[in-house]
Amino acid sequence: MEFDTSKVFHVLDHGFIRVVDIMGDDTSIVQAARVSYGDGTKHVSQDRALIRYLMRHKHTSPFEMCEIKLHLKMPIFVARQWIRHRTASINEYSARYSISDNKFYIPNDNSFHAQSIDKKQSRDLDSQLELDSIKDYSEKMQHLAGESYQLYQKMIDDGVAREIARISLPVCYYTEIYWKIDLHNLLHFLRLRCKENAQYEMREYANTILEKIVKVWVPHAYSAFMDYSFNSVLLSKQCILLIKKVINKEKISFEESDISKSEWNEFCDIFELDK
Amino acid sequence: MEFDTSKVFHVLDHGFIRVVDIMGDDTSIVQAARVSYGDGTKHVSQDRALIRYLMRHKHTSPFEMCEIKLHLKMPIFVARQWIRHRTASINEYSARYSISDNKFYIPNDNSFHAQSIDKKQSRDLDSQLELDSIKDYSEKMQHLAGESYQLYQKMIDDGVAREIARISLPVCYYTEIYWKIDLHNLLHFLRLRCKENAQYEMREYANTILEKIVKVWVPHAYSAFMDYSFNSVLLSKQCILLIKKVINKEKISFEESDISKSEWNEFCDIFELDK
Amino acid sequence: MEFDTSKVFHVLDHGFIRVVDIMGDDTSIVQAARVSYGDGTKHVSQDRALIRYLMRHKHTSPFEMCEIKLHLKMPIFVARQWIRHRTASINEYSARYSISDNKFYIPNDNSFHAQSIDKKQSRDLDSQLELDSIKDYSEKMQHLAGESYQLYQKMIDDGVAREIARISLPVCYYTEIYWKIDLHNLLHFLRLRCKENAQYEMREYANTILEKIVKVWVPHAYSAFMDYSFNSVLLSKQCILLIKKVINKEKISFEESDISKSEWNEFCDIFELDK
Amino acid sequence: MEFDTSKVFHVLDHGFIRVVDIMGDDTSIVQAARVSYGDGTKHVSQDRALIRYLMRHKHTSPFEMCEIKLHLKMPIFVARQWIRHRTASINEYSARYSISDNKFYIPNDNSFHAQSIDKKQSRDLDSQLELDSIKDYSEKMQHLAGESYQLYQKMIDDGVAREIARISLPVCYYTEIYWKIDLHNLLHFLRLRCKENAQYEMREYANTILEKIVKVWVPHAYSAFMDYSFNSVLLSKQCILLIKKVINKEKISFEESDISKSEWNEFCDIFELDK
Repeated sequence: MEFDTSKVFHVLDHGFIRVVDIMGDDTSIVQAARVSYGDGTKHVSQDRALIRYLMRHKHTSPFEMCEIKLHLKMPIFVARQWIRHRTASINEYSARYSISDNKFYIPNDNSFHAQSIDKKQSRDLDSQLELDSIKDYSEKMQHLAGESYQLYQKMIDDGVAREIARISLPVCYYTEIYWKIDLHNLLHFLRLRCKENAQYEMREYANTILEKIVKVWVPHAYSAFMDYSFNSVLLSKQCILLIKKVINKEKISFEESDISKSEWNEFCDIFELDK
Repeated sequence: MEFDTSKVFHVLDHGFIRVVDIMGDDTSIVQAARVSYGDGTKHVSQDRALIRYLMRHKHTSPFEMCEIKLHLKMPIFVARQWIRHRTASINEYSARYSISDNKFYIPNDNSFHAQSIDKKQSRDLDSQLELDSIKDYSEKMQHLAGESYQLYQKMIDDGVAREIARISLPVCYYTEIYWKIDLHNLLHFLRLRCKENAQYEMREYANTILEKIVKVWVPHAYSAFMDYSFNSVLLSKQCILLIKKVINKEKISFEESDISKSEWNEFCDIFELDK
Repeated sequence: MEFDTSKVFHVLDHGFIRVVDIMGDDTSIVQAARVSYGDGTKHVSQDRALIRYLMRHKHTSPFEMCEIKLHLKMPIFVARQWIRHRTASINEYSARYSISDNKFYIPNDNSFHAQSIDKKQSRDLDSQLELDSIKDYSEKMQHLAGESYQLYQKMIDDGVAREIARISLPVCYYTEIYWKIDLHNLLHFLRLRCKENAQYEMREYANTILEKIVKVWVPHAYSAFMDYSFNSVLLSKQCILLIKKVINKEKISFEESDISKSEWNEFCDIFELDK
Repeated sequence: MEFDTSKVFHVLDHGFIRVVDIMGDDTSIVQAARVSYGDGTKHVSQDRALIRYLMRHKHTSPFEMCEIKLHLKMPIFVARQWIRHRTASINEYSARYSISDNKFYIPNDNSFHAQSIDKKQSRDLDSQLELDSIKDYSEKMQHLAGESYQLYQKMIDDGVAREIARISLPVCYYTEIYWKIDLHNLLHFLRLRCKENAQYEMREYANTILEKIVKVWVPHAYSAFMDYSFNSVLLSKQCILLIKKVINKEKISFEESDISKSEWNEFCDIFELDK
């Protein structure tokens, strides 16, 4: 057990991540793989090399042999995305049983951005909204959150059922969950949720888990993940052909590439080619 | 295919349930069971009897052979519970990509109740709040929801990223999902979500699915479910002993029962015994 | 960590169960439940009572917060049933990568039984085959297993691919797996696999896990499971009515019961009534 | 419904694949995606383009909205690998309930190969065993399978329990399953099981499903899968650097590459570079 469970990683204005419990580490991955592949793994003599081999060939089951349990506090709109990952065990604080804390998330001034034009689902991180507008939005958000909690509090005090009283609380209110997941499914979660097209607030949690927890807990699995998954690229059949042409000094062009404009742009970005 | 997919079941003030697609029916359950149990099922000659036999003995896998896909509109606080069921496929309307409708749920006057004392998580359906108070809560909820949508709308109009703009919307706002699940897991969902300790708003959806859809789609599975699951009771080892004593005309009492007060009360309620 | 991982539980002629790793215990169940139900659990003051409450009401998610990893050696025909439980992580010894051990299972003389007439899928434990016949079957099984391993060995020595060579080995040959599962799903597995209609060889494993491992690891969860699940009975709607009639000293009979003969028989057995 | 359910695809010597039922098609993927991504998908005007976009960006949930049910007959050693895929519903013919057919698989003369030296888990498809040896193995396999069925038959006739009698049958015996899975998980299965390092007998089934069923059922999803998944390659961070160097006409070598020999070899093979 590597982690001090009293250590708390603070995220956003009122959120946190706490490691409650851990099962296994890099050696557990190796142990399970050697059962499965038996003599077949003898030629890969070292743990680090075997873990990289497993990651590269997507032999995922040995990574399921490690497990982690986290205690998390996050805004409801983050929790809503989080819980879409079905291969985990969850216990969430219930506002039907208990009284909600008066804690809500307001983006800081640097986290307000314009809607992205290209990336349909995200903010445009290069955009700059006017500071006056931001102050205005931020104040109004605070005010609304405050008003909604006041109504909530009044209804609770009057004896209205909690499950009704809470329905006016906005999704920026914080909730808490216990979340238990195996390493294979955690890495899958991180691959999706650390990426730039994930919402900024989600990424703050995912990056903390990746860099402060996984990296320390299972260093070999972490580095194999970074090289063979997180920082890898998937080349389509068409892009493989394009690379071959470039290597053979043939001309390539979007028009003859048989891929979409967005794939072409990504392709050129990765290999620093002229679009 | 039994269902007219243009038919819409309305739920709450703005919600709905629509059957998008269906795979299999009662005969598919029988077909799969006869593969598994082969000659072993020959003595159960009729489909209805076989389905009841499977349900009674919790041979659940044949019920997985039917599948249903629904299109649902429900308040976010209902969706949050819904999505905790992990054995389903889900596509939810994303407020990061798209603009939210200005549709929110306000309980009608008969749906406001006091917090239950016994049932820690629910409203007390026998309670009566004062009508004046209800009018007051209801108006304030409407007002808050309206204000929050106004702020949302303004931020969207100003070009603020959608994923930020939406965080002040309360959990009474509606969302939409496509939800695909097999019959076994659907029945498990209904067992939990039609029960009286489920939140009223959730039950409105669950009961519609049970009574308007499942009952028509798979009538044998429906009636087996009602008899052997939904309306059945689980008797603990201790309660079995109590029943035996009652049958043998021995005295029973809470003090000698070795069960908790709440289990004792439920036990007496089921069999109409004096507490 | 309660278990000495060098301790091995022997099962059948060459099988074993070894606890590799454990996460959590009874207190982890309580800890997770108190997050979910918050103030709602305060009235249940003691851990034991809370665990029993959770089990009785099928609040299953807190039981997912405990995890166990086992190393198992079992015949292939047992492994085939074992692996049907999908909510676990598995690494199995692969006969494509590695050479199979020359270890196979032969039932001992007391484990040969006739096909059951009633229970279509099982042996009849009350039946008695002739000892001479048993000796004969047993010898022939041994002989066949030996011959098949000889062919396997010859093909391996000749350099034939392992994945081909192994296809003549019978399902009584042993295999090994690493198996990691949470407590909720383990208890579900045990409920099915310790029951008398499970195959004897499977039950030998399941009972060892239940009585030698779970009972020591999570004693409160174990006893709650025994009372509210393993030794409980599910009474159908029809059987509840029958009980009420018995209590009210009304006559009951199979003819008027509206249940199948097998359900009637089970009902009478449970409550020691005349059939 | 595109498939004639009376049509049977024969595989190996006695196996088959039959489509029992289908839910959805390419348009169902698009329908679900447009719910999720709403306005965000409007710019991708055509179904084919949208499906390719979803596949490329691993937006997998819309592919879960299609479902297929197959009836399969396959050798036990194939079924054992098949069933390791946990995200499917299965009903298998049970040899505890029913009598096994006298059908077993013997590789034809072209399917006997030597153990591969490089690929630790597979046969070496370029190897050639001597025809005399093959004839010898083949005969012995047949003989053993025959003998084991004879013993099985005798025990069944004598009234021995089926669950015991069947344990001497080798894993080349055929079994039957009903298998229901969604398209996303089916494609994942096919990606693993059509690949050359899957066992030849498994690939025969997987390829039939891919080329005879999926290709006809969901042609857009099929071609997107082939381009962006099946025939794509994953380039590690290190390999991306190597490509950039090649493009910039810098020298690359295994020694300076920081990757394993096997990754280097694969890399050179993909882009037709000198090793």
